[in-house]
Amino acid sequence: MYKKYKLGACLPTFGSCADRFCLSGYGKGGSTMEEMLELAKKVNGLDGLELVSNWHVNDKNIRYVAKLFKDNGIEICMIVPDLWTQAKWGMGSIAAPFAKTRKQAVQEIKKSIDWAAELGCGYVDVWPGQDGYDYPFQADYQDAWKRLREAVEECAQYNKKVRVLVEYKLKEPRTHCFVSNVAKVILLLQGIKNTGCLLDVGHSLAAGENMAEAAALLADNRMLSYLHLNDNYCMWDDDLLVSSIHVVEYLELIYWLKRLKYEGWLTLDIFPYREDKVPAAQNSFEWIRFLFERIESTGMEKIENVIKSADANMVSGLVREMLGGKALK
Amino acid sequence: MYKKYKLGACLPTFGSCADRFCLSGYGKGGSTMEEMLELAKKVNGLDGLELVSNWHVNDKNIRYVAKLFKDNGIEICMIVPDLWTQAKWGMGSIAAPFAKTRKQAVQEIKKSIDWAAELGCGYVDVWPGQDGYDYPFQADYQDAWKRLREAVEECAQYNKKVRVLVEYKLKEPRTHCFVSNVAKVILLLQGIKNTGCLLDVGHSLAAGENMAEAAALLADNRMLSYLHLNDNYCMWDDDLLVSSIHVVEYLELIYWLKRLKYEGWLTLDIFPYREDKVPAAQNSFEWIRFLFERIESTGMEKIENVIKSADANMVSGLVREMLGGKALK
Amino acid sequence: MYKKYKLGACLPTFGSCADRFCLSGYGKGGSTMEEMLELAKKVNGLDGLELVSNWHVNDKNIRYVAKLFKDNGIEICMIVPDLWTQAKWGMGSIAAPFAKTRKQAVQEIKKSIDWAAELGCGYVDVWPGQDGYDYPFQADYQDAWKRLREAVEECAQYNKKVRVLVEYKLKEPRTHCFVSNVAKVILLLQGIKNTGCLLDVGHSLAAGENMAEAAALLADNRMLSYLHLNDNYCMWDDDLLVSSIHVVEYLELIYWLKRLKYEGWLTLDIFPYREDKVPAAQNSFEWIRFLFERIESTGMEKIENVIKSADANMVSGLVREMLGGKALK
Amino acid sequence: MYKKYKLGACLPTFGSCADRFCLSGYGKGGSTMEEMLELAKKVNGLDGLELVSNWHVNDKNIRYVAKLFKDNGIEICMIVPDLWTQAKWGMGSIAAPFAKTRKQAVQEIKKSIDWAAELGCGYVDVWPGQDGYDYPFQADYQDAWKRLREAVEECAQYNKKVRVLVEYKLKEPRTHCFVSNVAKVILLLQGIKNTGCLLDVGHSLAAGENMAEAAALLADNRMLSYLHLNDNYCMWDDDLLVSSIHVVEYLELIYWLKRLKYEGWLTLDIFPYREDKVPAAQNSFEWIRFLFERIESTGMEKIENVIKSADANMVSGLVREMLGGKALK
Repeated sequence: MYKKYKLGACLPTFGSCADRFCLSGYGKGGSTMEEMLELAKKVNGLDGLELVSNWHVNDKNIRYVAKLFKDNGIEICMIVPDLWTQAKWGMGSIAAPFAKTRKQAVQEIKKSIDWAAELGCGYVDVWPGQDGYDYPFQADYQDAWKRLREAVEECAQYNKKVRVLVEYKLKEPRTHCFVSNVAKVILLLQGIKNTGCLLDVGHSLAAGENMAEAAALLADNRMLSYLHLNDNYCMWDDDLLVSSIHVVEYLELIYWLKRLKYEGWLTLDIFPYREDKVPAAQNSFEWIRFLFERIESTGMEKIENVIKSADANMVSGLVREMLGGKALK
Repeated sequence: MYKKYKLGACLPTFGSCADRFCLSGYGKGGSTMEEMLELAKKVNGLDGLELVSNWHVNDKNIRYVAKLFKDNGIEICMIVPDLWTQAKWGMGSIAAPFAKTRKQAVQEIKKSIDWAAELGCGYVDVWPGQDGYDYPFQADYQDAWKRLREAVEECAQYNKKVRVLVEYKLKEPRTHCFVSNVAKVILLLQGIKNTGCLLDVGHSLAAGENMAEAAALLADNRMLSYLHLNDNYCMWDDDLLVSSIHVVEYLELIYWLKRLKYEGWLTLDIFPYREDKVPAAQNSFEWIRFLFERIESTGMEKIENVIKSADANMVSGLVREMLGGKALK
Repeated sequence: MYKKYKLGACLPTFGSCADRFCLSGYGKGGSTMEEMLELAKKVNGLDGLELVSNWHVNDKNIRYVAKLFKDNGIEICMIVPDLWTQAKWGMGSIAAPFAKTRKQAVQEIKKSIDWAAELGCGYVDVWPGQDGYDYPFQADYQDAWKRLREAVEECAQYNKKVRVLVEYKLKEPRTHCFVSNVAKVILLLQGIKNTGCLLDVGHSLAAGENMAEAAALLADNRMLSYLHLNDNYCMWDDDLLVSSIHVVEYLELIYWLKRLKYEGWLTLDIFPYREDKVPAAQNSFEWIRFLFERIESTGMEKIENVIKSADANMVSGLVREMLGGKALK
Repeated sequence: MYKKYKLGACLPTFGSCADRFCLSGYGKGGSTMEEMLELAKKVNGLDGLELVSNWHVNDKNIRYVAKLFKDNGIEICMIVPDLWTQAKWGMGSIAAPFAKTRKQAVQEIKKSIDWAAELGCGYVDVWPGQDGYDYPFQADYQDAWKRLREAVEECAQYNKKVRVLVEYKLKEPRTHCFVSNVAKVILLLQGIKNTGCLLDVGHSLAAGENMAEAAALLADNRMLSYLHLNDNYCMWDDDLLVSSIHVVEYLELIYWLKRLKYEGWLTLDIFPYREDKVPAAQNSFEWIRFLFERIESTGMEKIENVIKSADANMVSGLVREMLGGKALK
């Protein structure tokens, strides 16, 4: 089997995952970048890691980081500008109601682009998670949208070697984020060159979407650039292990990734709060492999025929068969 | 106060509302069009009614209908093609997987356009509620989207005097509808002249949206053409009386309708299953009037200043004041 | 393998499933009881059928029905009093705010008990779906609870040969039903002899519950009497085919049914609106068999050890293994 | 107007609210207990504050704390055992799968009871938020329930002067908490003396409940002991300012609190992440006063009559009238 995709992980997957109640983290992970990297290397099949600006990479350590990852044979697959871990972004980043903050946010992204370029990484992940509102009457929706467009445009023009990806999410940390779903991100990016979408499939689920449908819509708009994988209960971004809940939807997603000829990164964005980090990542990768194997051994044509029938009974048999049972005769 | 909007209702508001358990309806409404019209006329302030094709208007009765409504001084504000009440649409209408059905659906819309033209009604409401899927692996998302675009385009070109509006909804009757949220409908209609969006605010709530944000995004895309009003619990299209739950969000919506200079129809799409129909519509209209009065006596500038502040404490005081309390000093 | 459970279906599974938009039904099913029975008989492994009072069984046809099912070798596994298909129950049945309606509802249940007794059926299914409210300020919660208890108590004492089961549901047809979740039904039935719970697993999912946890809590309270099987997206009672979405949770449910030594009916309550009815039921049964086979070949002890570990990584491997993959070494 | 309730707040309301992204907090609050107390004192009408064990009160500082609050004229209305801020509780506290952890948790509660007794505070708030599971197959539901009962029983017997309250929540920090809704907490506490429920109304909303119905059910079981107030969007525990979204349901809640003769604490459990803390608390109190005033000036009998009618049209008019509009004639 020729592997057409690369497997990655966000570095904090191997850190001490915290939530708003246990702020010091549930532990079992590394504290420093080096410790997290050491854990990551134990995961069979890992090709790359995502780094967060300032936290993991900055002007002072950039040459060190480049050498560290090169020496360890791990690609840096994404630089994530920090637009969401500091109080100064509380009221928003690139769409903040205050011009000064917006300027800082664009500056932050440009710095990340510089670092990405220097590290040979082709993407930055702009996640405007703080850009939104918590209450009715708290946002000027028209202004916010203009500002989002302007900022993305400015950043996208900054360096053609680094593509600006935008990650959408319905909510959290705000109760409402502006760039909330797949169609919104397409509207946002339309006509802006050197951009694309980072599809976090858990964000898609939590936005009430079907992951595969989201991927197809992005591909039709030439914006399916990168994927984050995890799972949840469709209500919140729980960042569970891959395919722990939505096995059927995950099978469908993999079918569509193959059909859409997606050949990019499949990167874990899981928060294994209470789990050992290495097997959490390893189990997620094993699920990905298992799902690909199931789709491939079933055959694309057979699946396509079921889809064309639009018949739920055909679907029921197909899924049962893919998971080890038998279809009706 | 100069009234800039018109108040309407879907005719079935005055019928015998049924659900999947009580198929003969909970009663208290009219059975025939004439009976429903008689009830509707008792509602103070009603300007227009929506009719469903075939059920209320057809080739045989069209002249009669025109005269009936003219004589009663009630405008026909919308013709709704029937793409969802018959078994033949079960697998979809304009995006059905079968070419024959798609053709029938387009034909149905064109007939509705003819009737609308003859009745002097400027809109048809295309609601592709049956176009979607219930299970993973049941839909070809790429094909469906192409078909939706093609059908809307063909219908929009048919008669320039009648605008083709598309109504989005996340789910029901399918567990997933293709045209599920506000940004999707904008993507669908982009570049197709003589179209617009019918924003059903309950569909917006049930899609996890803020109603005002949806309206603003549509207006920025020049697609805010018509509104359906009702309320629900953000999980399902309950079609409750206007403002029965989301008073604060409704206040915000009215502010934005004024700011966006929306001057079209505000039409009830409520299902008063167990209620007397006339006071159900009347109460909904009274809420609309009350909300407009609250916004107008508060003043647009004062509200805009709170929005500009983005300060939840300012918001809290403003809302309390609008509902009869006092803001903090 | 010794089969410890019986497979049933609600008779309307084989009827023309309708919803509030397509009131005449999407078709493909039978119209009369006899037609539906003929379809049901084609389903391999079907042991019994549920009948709805008045619609399927009444004073006039009861001997005919008894003979019909005996001749066809199909058990009648449940009689369901009709407390939800007629306008007279719109404001509630056994907890209606009006004494006359409550009396009628109790009378309806007693008639169903009589019919059940005559048909040799050991259960009636009291589903107080109309007992609830749609709006705040519309229900006297204290009175409603008292009335629910009184009615259940009166019915339970009526005939010791027929057990009164209560089915809970969060919403639909009301936006809020009083008997909304598993713990509520336990509170309701505490201390009332000759009662039990009908656990509709789709209602459990749509109430935000884990199905297996609900079953365990009922069993600990000796109230796990009967199961309805179907599936949905955790938001609404979609009545999809068994295990079409929640394969993992279904595996867990089957494990728990075995552990709890549940040996009663597993009855389909699916609404295959757009599907051929016989394969819809057949596929559901095949899923049940497949799930049992997976649990049994994995072994109860192995599963219990994973549960005792409380380790998500062990869980991830176990589930992957049960579905045809491999656990981590 | 004779005030029958007392107004309180959780001390961290005045701290630097953090979430899982911004772990150092969004700021604007105090860092030390003394700083938070100083802010709290600025809130007009504040009667008491809740303290968290170990963080705010411990063996070393208990006399100091007692004097500090006495000197400042602020009551300590609740001691909250810390069962959720440290990694050691990650897999659970009183229902953890490991005996050692359960023992520690009970010990923690007893220490809190001692401190409460010494501080003249009548309650501890046991919130088993870490007791639950994130994945199917991760919990032994039967064991967990037994352990919960045993632990509550042991703690309740420890000191008759301090009542053990249990706070329920559907999820967070676990994706599923065992004590998830109002009926579950009633089942848990049945027959155990010296216990009660702390009803966090936001937890009730996020569990799909109506707050007033939850309060009524608790009162009927003599378990309505204490209230936490905040607001959210019914999906997550957003801890927004009081009545910022659910004005209508809040009106109904206040009506029921009066009808149920609840005369205890109304304590804020808000997380004003991005807001100035003092006005956030002040606005919440002003909403409470406004809502009480609206109910009182409307009159209990008038409201009760509307409830008895069960008529949504009566409800619609009543609510509009309570918020400054007019009912239908």
